[in-house]
Amino acid sequence: MTAFSTPETTTLKLMPPSESKARVSQFMRQLQDTICQGLEQLDGVATFKEDSWERVEGGGGRSRVMRDGAVFEQGGVGFSEVWGENLPPSILTQRPEAAGHGFYAIGTSMVLHPRNPYIPTVHLNYRYFEAGPVWWFGGGLDLTPYYPFSEDAAHLHRTLKQACDANHPDYYPVFKHWCDEYFYLKHRQEMRGVGGIFFDYQDGQGLLYRGPHPEGEAASYSSKVGEVEPRSWEQLFAFVQDCGNAFLPAYVPIVERRREMEYGDRERNFQLYRRGRYVEFNLVYDRGTIFGLQTNGRTESILMSLPPLVRWEYGYKPEPNTPEAQLYEVFLKPQDWAKWTPASS
Amino acid sequence: MTAFSTPETTTLKLMPPSESKARVSQFMRQLQDTICQGLEQLDGVATFKEDSWERVEGGGGRSRVMRDGAVFEQGGVGFSEVWGENLPPSILTQRPEAAGHGFYAIGTSMVLHPRNPYIPTVHLNYRYFEAGPVWWFGGGLDLTPYYPFSEDAAHLHRTLKQACDANHPDYYPVFKHWCDEYFYLKHRQEMRGVGGIFFDYQDGQGLLYRGPHPEGEAASYSSKVGEVEPRSWEQLFAFVQDCGNAFLPAYVPIVERRREMEYGDRERNFQLYRRGRYVEFNLVYDRGTIFGLQTNGRTESILMSLPPLVRWEYGYKPEPNTPEAQLYEVFLKPQDWAKWTPASS
Repeated sequence: MTAFSTPETTTLKLMPPSESKARVSQFMRQLQDTICQGLEQLDGVATFKEDSWERVEGGGGRSRVMRDGAVFEQGGVGFSEVWGENLPPSILTQRPEAAGHGFYAIGTSMVLHPRNPYIPTVHLNYRYFEAGPVWWFGGGLDLTPYYPFSEDAAHLHRTLKQACDANHPDYYPVFKHWCDEYFYLKHRQEMRGVGGIFFDYQDGQGLLYRGPHPEGEAASYSSKVGEVEPRSWEQLFAFVQDCGNAFLPAYVPIVERRREMEYGDRERNFQLYRRGRYVEFNLVYDRGTIFGLQTNGRTESILMSLPPLVRWEYGYKPEPNTPEAQLYEVFLKPQDWAKWTPASS
Repeated sequence: MTAFSTPETTTLKLMPPSESKARVSQFMRQLQDTICQGLEQLDGVATFKEDSWERVEGGGGRSRVMRDGAVFEQGGVGFSEVWGENLPPSILTQRPEAAGHGFYAIGTSMVLHPRNPYIPTVHLNYRYFEAGPVWWFGGGLDLTPYYPFSEDAAHLHRTLKQACDANHPDYYPVFKHWCDEYFYLKHRQEMRGVGGIFFDYQDGQGLLYRGPHPEGEAASYSSKVGEVEPRSWEQLFAFVQDCGNAFLPAYVPIVERRREMEYGDRERNFQLYRRGRYVEFNLVYDRGTIFGLQTNGRTESILMSLPPLVRWEYGYKPEPNTPEAQLYEVFLKPQDWAKWTPASS
């Protein structure tokens, strides 16, 4: 990690190619297509319905929703490509160089709500921004189980680690930590699920991590946290493609393992209750949701991440020594899932 | 409205009495008690369960929840009295004089989710703050019907207007407008319901209204909007008591009129869908919710406003010429409900 380029080379490496937007756009559309085909095949019953939409201020997208499938109670996969005059304040505080410039933003997002409570909910989002002198990639993939199966969490994390490791050895540990930190409900003191990877503001300039310091909010940023040699636009684009393509191999085997498991009212009620946390996270904390609502995005497309049926219950606590309690005690706290091994029997 | 006091008199009038906190505290507790008794009598089956809680940083409260009643699927009535070192930034931007001072906040809040879709959801909140050199009252009452009954909206508004008019002729028109403006879901371009009254930052200094200008956000504040002669602490406290005491007469007759009406899956599904808007409003916009979560409040008490069961549906639109369509077209837009008269038959 000491091979820093000369300033000239760095500037050259850090510029996006002239066809950057068209290439990312093509990839993000293909990712939506590939994911939708894979999910229709997996579900076997329901198909996606598509709505194309345009945004008055510039750009548009295509939203695809599947309902009442054999596996998926609801699933949404969205593609959007939008532009405008000003980024919203929530992004400008992180990217002050973009102030006063127009912006271009493109991304593919997905949230799947399975009907069987033994199948986890999953979320994917990859996005790319250009705004005046700056550009960056962001995104991630995270898993939200309702019932605790270590092998599912381990499988997802190992598949993501493989995709990351092929691009840079520091990516998985840094972006796994950032995911644990980002998908956290402060008011509940709970993680949203078992995490995965999350990253933002990847502009090739060598700073991987821009979240709170891992040793506590009081500590300042440290050069030891996720600082690497500069990465080119091509290297980052290749990384994001690998991440996107890792989704089906990361998730499909989990669904196949759980889809025939029988469940009753207890499991269904717990699933509906836990879905409330998904709503709380998306409406109170999620950057994508807040960006969409702040930039006058298409509300139905932004909120298609919300679950089809949700329950809130005042003062709920799981019974001790139950799978529901194990979810809280083990799965909603950071764990090194990639290193998990089954107990020998 | 031209009878301005001399500066000396004004200063005197604007000071709270020395026992201000104890008196408001007593009233807010009594209001919770009176409301809970009235609602238990109305429901006839379920009773409130109480949780008392303490806040590490100072203060505490008592949360009361009713579930699975004859009328109420869930109802929560909370009292809280908290203090701390600093008000959160969201309030300090409106009350810069409070910066660097400790704060004291007290309030009673209520949200009721009836089971029968013909009975509207209702929300009440009255609160009082002291922080260094400043103090103020805030709060309101608003109604969220699922099905359109003009006489219900009119009854609620008339009852509130009467309570307001007894205190100041400008209160109802100004606070009715502020309610329409405040309980608005910008991302849906919909009001949350038929409104009621809402006010904040009532410090007796003569400025009733501190929302966006009624003629558009671009216009600046005008002295013509809700500026009245100064009001004393006693006058404002009397007003808030009248508002609080108006709740049962405003709501109980509506429940009595609707509770025996039969409904089916269609009405229940529409109710569950519309409850999603309640969740969206409370988590994205509501000052009380945001204040609570920002000041490390008791999460279960803050979020007991959320409905017990909620549905989201991508792209839902009501069929034309149905009661559901009439709700959107007439009831989710500002109307002068206090002036409504039934068509002569």
